Amino acid sequence: MKVAILGATGYTGSELVRLLSQHPRVELAFISSRGDAGSPFYRVHPQFYEVQGLKLQPPELELIPEAVELVFCALPHGRSAEVVPALLKAGKRVIDLSADFRLREASLYETWYGWAHPAPALLEESVYGLPEINGEALPGAALVANPGCYPTSALLALAPLAEAGLVDWDSVIIDAKTGVSGAGRNPKQAFHFPECTESVKAYRIGDHQHMPEIEQMLAQLSGEAVTLTFTPHLVPMIRGILSTIYLRLRRKCTPEQVEQLYQDYYSGAPFVRLPEQLPETRFVRGSNYCDLGWRFDERTGRLVIISAIDNLVKGAAGQAVQNMNLQLGFPEETGLTQLPLF
Amino acid sequence: MKVAILGATGYTGSELVRLLSQHPRVELAFISSRGDAGSPFYRVHPQFYEVQGLKLQPPELELIPEAVELVFCALPHGRSAEVVPALLKAGKRVIDLSADFRLREASLYETWYGWAHPAPALLEESVYGLPEINGEALPGAALVANPGCYPTSALLALAPLAEAGLVDWDSVIIDAKTGVSGAGRNPKQAFHFPECTESVKAYRIGDHQHMPEIEQMLAQLSGEAVTLTFTPHLVPMIRGILSTIYLRLRRKCTPEQVEQLYQDYYSGAPFVRLPEQLPETRFVRGSNYCDLGWRFDERTGRLVIISAIDNLVKGAAGQAVQNMNLQLGFPEETGLTQLPLF
Amino acid sequence: MKVAILGATGYTGSELVRLLSQHPRVELAFISSRGDAGSPFYRVHPQFYEVQGLKLQPPELELIPEAVELVFCALPHGRSAEVVPALLKAGKRVIDLSADFRLREASLYETWYGWAHPAPALLEESVYGLPEINGEALPGAALVANPGCYPTSALLALAPLAEAGLVDWDSVIIDAKTGVSGAGRNPKQAFHFPECTESVKAYRIGDHQHMPEIEQMLAQLSGEAVTLTFTPHLVPMIRGILSTIYLRLRRKCTPEQVEQLYQDYYSGAPFVRLPEQLPETRFVRGSNYCDLGWRFDERTGRLVIISAIDNLVKGAAGQAVQNMNLQLGFPEETGLTQLPLF
Amino acid sequence: MKVAILGATGYTGSELVRLLSQHPRVELAFISSRGDAGSPFYRVHPQFYEVQGLKLQPPELELIPEAVELVFCALPHGRSAEVVPALLKAGKRVIDLSADFRLREASLYETWYGWAHPAPALLEESVYGLPEINGEALPGAALVANPGCYPTSALLALAPLAEAGLVDWDSVIIDAKTGVSGAGRNPKQAFHFPECTESVKAYRIGDHQHMPEIEQMLAQLSGEAVTLTFTPHLVPMIRGILSTIYLRLRRKCTPEQVEQLYQDYYSGAPFVRLPEQLPETRFVRGSNYCDLGWRFDERTGRLVIISAIDNLVKGAAGQAVQNMNLQLGFPEETGLTQLPLF
Repeated sequence: MKVAILGATGYTGSELVRLLSQHPRVELAFISSRGDAGSPFYRVHPQFYEVQGLKLQPPELELIPEAVELVFCALPHGRSAEVVPALLKAGKRVIDLSADFRLREASLYETWYGWAHPAPALLEESVYGLPEINGEALPGAALVANPGCYPTSALLALAPLAEAGLVDWDSVIIDAKTGVSGAGRNPKQAFHFPECTESVKAYRIGDHQHMPEIEQMLAQLSGEAVTLTFTPHLVPMIRGILSTIYLRLRRKCTPEQVEQLYQDYYSGAPFVRLPEQLPETRFVRGSNYCDLGWRFDERTGRLVIISAIDNLVKGAAGQAVQNMNLQLGFPEETGLTQLPLF
Repeated sequence: MKVAILGATGYTGSELVRLLSQHPRVELAFISSRGDAGSPFYRVHPQFYEVQGLKLQPPELELIPEAVELVFCALPHGRSAEVVPALLKAGKRVIDLSADFRLREASLYETWYGWAHPAPALLEESVYGLPEINGEALPGAALVANPGCYPTSALLALAPLAEAGLVDWDSVIIDAKTGVSGAGRNPKQAFHFPECTESVKAYRIGDHQHMPEIEQMLAQLSGEAVTLTFTPHLVPMIRGILSTIYLRLRRKCTPEQVEQLYQDYYSGAPFVRLPEQLPETRFVRGSNYCDLGWRFDERTGRLVIISAIDNLVKGAAGQAVQNMNLQLGFPEETGLTQLPLF
Repeated sequence: MKVAILGATGYTGSELVRLLSQHPRVELAFISSRGDAGSPFYRVHPQFYEVQGLKLQPPELELIPEAVELVFCALPHGRSAEVVPALLKAGKRVIDLSADFRLREASLYETWYGWAHPAPALLEESVYGLPEINGEALPGAALVANPGCYPTSALLALAPLAEAGLVDWDSVIIDAKTGVSGAGRNPKQAFHFPECTESVKAYRIGDHQHMPEIEQMLAQLSGEAVTLTFTPHLVPMIRGILSTIYLRLRRKCTPEQVEQLYQDYYSGAPFVRLPEQLPETRFVRGSNYCDLGWRFDERTGRLVIISAIDNLVKGAAGQAVQNMNLQLGFPEETGLTQLPLF
Repeated sequence: MKVAILGATGYTGSELVRLLSQHPRVELAFISSRGDAGSPFYRVHPQFYEVQGLKLQPPELELIPEAVELVFCALPHGRSAEVVPALLKAGKRVIDLSADFRLREASLYETWYGWAHPAPALLEESVYGLPEINGEALPGAALVANPGCYPTSALLALAPLAEAGLVDWDSVIIDAKTGVSGAGRNPKQAFHFPECTESVKAYRIGDHQHMPEIEQMLAQLSGEAVTLTFTPHLVPMIRGILSTIYLRLRRKCTPEQVEQLYQDYYSGAPFVRLPEQLPETRFVRGSNYCDLGWRFDERTGRLVIISAIDNLVKGAAGQAVQNMNLQLGFPEETGLTQLPLF
């Protein structure tokens, strides 16, 4: 089974190369890059030296070999929506890692991303690729919208309570902390080493484009309107998202009941772990796991949930491979069994 | 004016040495250490080589020169309360950097610190040394309880709203992020470099000993009972605390009104800054500043306040020097005008 | 094929668990720990949660299942030599990751490690497990001494020139930089996060115990006496060793000749890479690769060689697995094909 | 006494603002920036909020107030040489922090910097501003060339031996490790946080533009031709340079003789420290100190010298202020007594 990656040199794209070049069921037959076309992949990412014979191609759709059955789009937001229709028309399956097909409503997309959606007709067709929640919609899907990193972290933490109708939505606050790779590979002042190491900051308070994505999915799971507070923070580390989620339950639950709810909800989910110890991002580094933990703050009646993922794996490329596995009928864990790297 | 430091080799103690050895109005006449007595200070902290002729003395009160008028206690919690009564009896003023004299009620101390308070009679006498709030009580005070690092960060952020009676206390959540120096100088597994760099984690959810200290002061300022949610996190950096504080106001305020409230409250406070840009811990590194910023999250009606301090300066040693200045009648900023170090 | 690990909770031991639990040809049948016996492995290293059902056993040799054919000793120096004789007597093969069986002469061991060697008779029997150099001695070996991390990095860089008789030994300087995991898992003042992040230092100049190990092997390869200068440095990162090696050649060589020499020497070596770009430790992170590069400093007639490895993989656990593969007749790369983790 | 800074927003320029705004003898009367002219300084560097009322001016020489007596040029290489002649003609003293006036020979400048020197006549007039070596030339100097960061670190380590004629120059190797701020404030791929944290690398082997600057000064001190090997490395920290210097002495010296030589050479130098413990960059962080240490590697007859500075202070802005103090007749330490910041 041959697959392709459009936009292979960004952090998400190169993480896809890492995972797919070791995947036992697929062959990486085409990788593209606008800026580095013509160069061997290892010139851009020397860690892949001698392992990856693949050469970067220009991002021309007609260059994609016909035998390619599935294309990963790791292009910037907006660029994906321009090429996906043609890919689908050409009979390829598509997993899109941009935000272009995540929101159901074109107007919401325009509000948060700043331009009219180039292919609004596809919004309804696309499957939101969070396998633990949406797994049954994936087999055979033509277009999968791979979730954002923050939404993955938040939704896995909240889904069991949301589906059970237990959340007092007015009480929900998501305080998230991300590593710097979440900002992408393009060098900018704010991510210049001396300006972000040894420091922590909040940014885009109440204004981050992942917020509507989180709310849309929670509304779908709970059948209620959801508006919540989400604050992202930048932490001096390469990989990882830790979400600290505060909420009040609608009815009193014992810790055992909450534990049982999560155990049941994720009983068949190979990548969600429920350790006793509170999650730390280092425990999932380089892996496709999402670790969840919680504590009751009895004095205030709040439940505090901690969710940890590697933003580049479960938050992007790993989840895309997991989606592909389900889409194509491979066992869900294929090619994703690497243990976290201390 | 001669001063002394008990416990000079810990991070708080050595930061006091840094500040006091450059203070134009006092002379550092005695520094002690249980473990390193007899050694020159620079042997333990080589950055002080040739600058500090002082030798570490054993922590015997009778060795403190009679001319010493003020003693900084940078001893572990519990140890301070054992020596402070004798110091006061000997006519010294005391600034205690432990938690021993911060809580008003001995029973609360026992609950959170785990042992009966050794000198409960002094709890009422001590002045809580947060100069921006309690400044008028400092001149001439005999015993000053220097606030904890998290409480300093949270209280400066909340005091203007608390005094104005504007806070819906049931809505308050403090999500705080600290650098590793907050854990002290003693090496432990959790703070071993390979185990805490490149990672972020929450700890002691709903269970941190700084919580009652925060609540006590807010109750005093607001005249109401205060119970809130406080979650500390560990971030891979040496210095800094960033507190992200979520709350709802009791009555609708415009951003301009909030701005005005803070401007008025801190109009005479040289160490509280209200920049337009959101605070980041690097902007206060090595300085005694507390930077405050806020944003309204209009969709949810929440106010989100960001507070940044250097935990070892405004969160500990710098604040202690600021307290000393007021206690002894020096200008408040004396010896504390170092700009943040990029 | 069943294998065991003695000392599984240290950094080297847990890296062995990571690699062996994913190795397709062996089963991890026994892991021990003195301090954490009785505990599930994931309690000590939560990243292994749910993946590793193995429980830590006491380090009693009689508890090792009889079916175990090979034992990895990841014990402290000195402790290994106490248990290895019994393991061999019991018919197990042994790969020892301590320094106990690396030096050929017991007197040298005593000089550098400070105590008499407990099992000097085995020193001659042991095979120095650097497969790229010593590969033909590994199949069937009973006792393999896994090289130190610094020696691995230095020897792979120097071996081609040493064997070719090209090195002016009097000119050789190895300036090495290591990540903090090289210091082990035990918390100490020097590796406490606030004391080693944001800083770099040299240590044990002319006095590091890996020096005789390097010299011994180079002497063997070159047939000459070798005495060189070796300076280790500590760099604030978890993993990685970069060795910068300075030397003069005995006869003039063109860059092409040096290139050819290395290409030939490592033509069959799957884990040595010779990229055009200078090695950086991040390009080998989490992998078993050793990246080598060099530049002629024409003004001074020196050759400068750069060698990069992950100290916990090619410098310890990965190399041990590579040794096991050769010892037991598996393909050399089995279980070691993970790409570097950006 | 009024002073000005051209190029105040780069790391060197803003460090000058930090030091000069607290200097008791001068007033910062003019600061310029090409890109941020018109903006208050704190908008670019928020750590300076409320402390610095200064506004960034366009870099037009005619805007510099006439009362300004001394101008710090913190402009890019090449740009300085274009404006310095006019400044001198206008009667200003100049301290140039670029490389433009460090080399004596215009041809050498052209070779290493790539373009013809715009003002070669000034090369002979300029004073190389390394006060510990060149201090007597500074009082009254019109044009001071502030040394590079690597040269400062290397020259202070080698000067005593060079002047004493003790160095076997053919044996000298400088292996230097720098923090990322040394690369300047402009964001680039190589200094993007995820690409340089958790890694170490060598760069520009035998090809760095600071090499001729080091050699020129050593030749002058020793009266001999000097050609040496210099290899810079990038280490994941903000500030600091550690130089590890290898050499052989021409005649045998005891450790005591070397110690005495350094003690004598630097007896009047307030910023060179000779601690027993080996230097680490953290011990000089934020200060103007240069820490020097050494060990004899008796087995190979080499002397290994370790030199640590803060590249932005003693390696740039602090040294410039030290030069100004001597140029203008202030005590050498004025405004530079800040202790290192742990």
